Amino acid sequence: MTEPKAGPPTECPAPRAAEPEQRPGEGHEATVLLERARAAVDPVLRAALDSLPVPMRRIALYHFGWEHADGTPAGGGAGKAIRPALVLAAASALGGPEARTAAVRAAAAVELVHNFTLLHDDVMDRDATRRHRPTAWTVFGDADAILAGDALQALALRLLAGDTHPAARAAAARLADCVIELCAGQHADTAMERRGPGEVTLAETLAMAEAKTGALLGCACAIGALYADAGDADVAALDAFGREAGLAFQLIDDVIGIWGDPRRTGKPAGADLAARKKSLPVVAALTSGTQAAAELAALYATAHRKEDLERIALTVERAGGRDWAQAEAADRMARAMQEVARAVPDPEAAGGLLALAEFVTRRST
Amino acid sequence: MTEPKAGPPTECPAPRAAEPEQRPGEGHEATVLLERARAAVDPVLRAALDSLPVPMRRIALYHFGWEHADGTPAGGGAGKAIRPALVLAAASALGGPEARTAAVRAAAAVELVHNFTLLHDDVMDRDATRRHRPTAWTVFGDADAILAGDALQALALRLLAGDTHPAARAAAARLADCVIELCAGQHADTAMERRGPGEVTLAETLAMAEAKTGALLGCACAIGALYADAGDADVAALDAFGREAGLAFQLIDDVIGIWGDPRRTGKPAGADLAARKKSLPVVAALTSGTQAAAELAALYATAHRKEDLERIALTVERAGGRDWAQAEAADRMARAMQEVARAVPDPEAAGGLLALAEFVTRRST
Repeated sequence: MTEPKAGPPTECPAPRAAEPEQRPGEGHEATVLLERARAAVDPVLRAALDSLPVPMRRIALYHFGWEHADGTPAGGGAGKAIRPALVLAAASALGGPEARTAAVRAAAAVELVHNFTLLHDDVMDRDATRRHRPTAWTVFGDADAILAGDALQALALRLLAGDTHPAARAAAARLADCVIELCAGQHADTAMERRGPGEVTLAETLAMAEAKTGALLGCACAIGALYADAGDADVAALDAFGREAGLAFQLIDDVIGIWGDPRRTGKPAGADLAARKKSLPVVAALTSGTQAAAELAALYATAHRKEDLERIALTVERAGGRDWAQAEAADRMARAMQEVARAVPDPEAAGGLLALAEFVTRRST
Repeated sequence: MTEPKAGPPTECPAPRAAEPEQRPGEGHEATVLLERARAAVDPVLRAALDSLPVPMRRIALYHFGWEHADGTPAGGGAGKAIRPALVLAAASALGGPEARTAAVRAAAAVELVHNFTLLHDDVMDRDATRRHRPTAWTVFGDADAILAGDALQALALRLLAGDTHPAARAAAARLADCVIELCAGQHADTAMERRGPGEVTLAETLAMAEAKTGALLGCACAIGALYADAGDADVAALDAFGREAGLAFQLIDDVIGIWGDPRRTGKPAGADLAARKKSLPVVAALTSGTQAAAELAALYATAHRKEDLERIALTVERAGGRDWAQAEAADRMARAMQEVARAVPDPEAAGGLLALAEFVTRRST
């Protein structure tokens, strides 16, 4: 459900130690895939949004970055289209160009679901900025942001209900199931944030991240596989690939949330620590059983000055939180690759999926 | 999207002048239909809710009246099942018992959508009581009430995606379109409440009521027709029937909101006036061009004491708001009957639909 509020990864290509080995040209391949996905999906998305009643359309177009708050056209910036690109790459890997073309409408549906959750999450989390712009609720109010989110969920399922492809029914069922998992993930996230720093386990934090972030990436890949008429085992492998890649993505995003360069992330340094977020590196540190873990728990309970943030970050690092997160991200990426190799043994055919997975986890800290 | 917060209509059978003529036994027929719908749909609903992740399930079961806030079983009270009963009555009228049986899952989906909108509307409207119990957001907080609503919308579409009946795809498309219309209706309602008493026309108030209340009743009837394999014209006539009956229902509900007996409605007398709601009788009064209209506008702007409510109600009545609403409700019911007669010429077959429509509009003021 989360999306990085950082700048586009193309601006920060420096690889890190914890990353899977990079081959030259891969970043470029992912960028091309994302651009092609955007080009294929945007007309379907625009037509779907244009079908909304005027007030809902206005909020949606603002949220997607296609209109300013006053309704005048804006230059876009509707996210990086990672989820639609995964739908299309999965369809292509398992069924070639024909399956890719057939899956465009479903790719737009997945992007609509993603954006519905962003609209609602921003209301619940009181997040004021998204994609470098004021969030919809700050502009239109809570009620209209909730209603626009509701309408986008309906529009996503509407797109699939209007799709005569034989895979559309299974895709709709999977997407609806995924929405329910995303809701449970967001619930777990907000519930965990209300608990004390010593009351959260690493296992439940990982489960929350899988539900909140991994589920929709997995669903995107699985839906692509459905449009390629893949068998159950391949659909499951693609789902697992997306989930593992999603967890790797979340781990790296959490590392960036603590140690990211503010000039690149667009967020103040240590923003996640200032908000006392129980992100994955922090929970790993708190549950490490080290002396630094005890120090961190005390700091999380008492230190409230801006100057303390650097000390907290250092303590998370001393307790092993940063190393763990980077190693875990690499491990998840390795698992993701195993899953995709199971369903798509030809490395050439799997290339697009791997390039996208590496792209989302290859963001400079 | 609204649902009366009044007691069950069975307690208050006294007919009013503006109503269509009552035939003996009709109230009983509707009660039986509602009970039968509840009995058919509840097992599907319960199984669907039981499939939700624990935290979402808990909120949903509380909202449906099947659990107390602490998770212990409660005696029910999950509304009157009017919408599922309309789905089943429409299927039955056009396709007999076989179509009725086939439509049970779709009837549960319609009820889930209705309840998703109630959960979200209560958050937006800050309504603290629903079906004589504290609303979900007052018990679980805004975020969880929003998430539970999101999950119920997904669950509704999930039910239809898992339905192999040939009508399921068209039903899903119609239900998703209806959700979008409900969102637009709720938006119009909240937007109109923010405007001054002189800035709202009767036409837009009627359009809002149709989107907010009529749309889902129409959708319920149309979906029932789809499961009876009805042609486009009959589906459209059933949709129009539900919309007209829904408007009649809203008009009567608004009359009750002003002149209803608090012992029967469970709301304090004049609650809608105290909240300065721009309900249909009030807008009709305000736009009547009478001397009383001007008095009412002045009262709506200045009178804030509880003692003024009776005077405001009297002024709405003097400006013709009550008579107009009751005549309009009767007119809408007549149109509803014409629509149903077009699709179901046999009065015997149409009896269930007519009984339900009369039931929802036959509530004592």
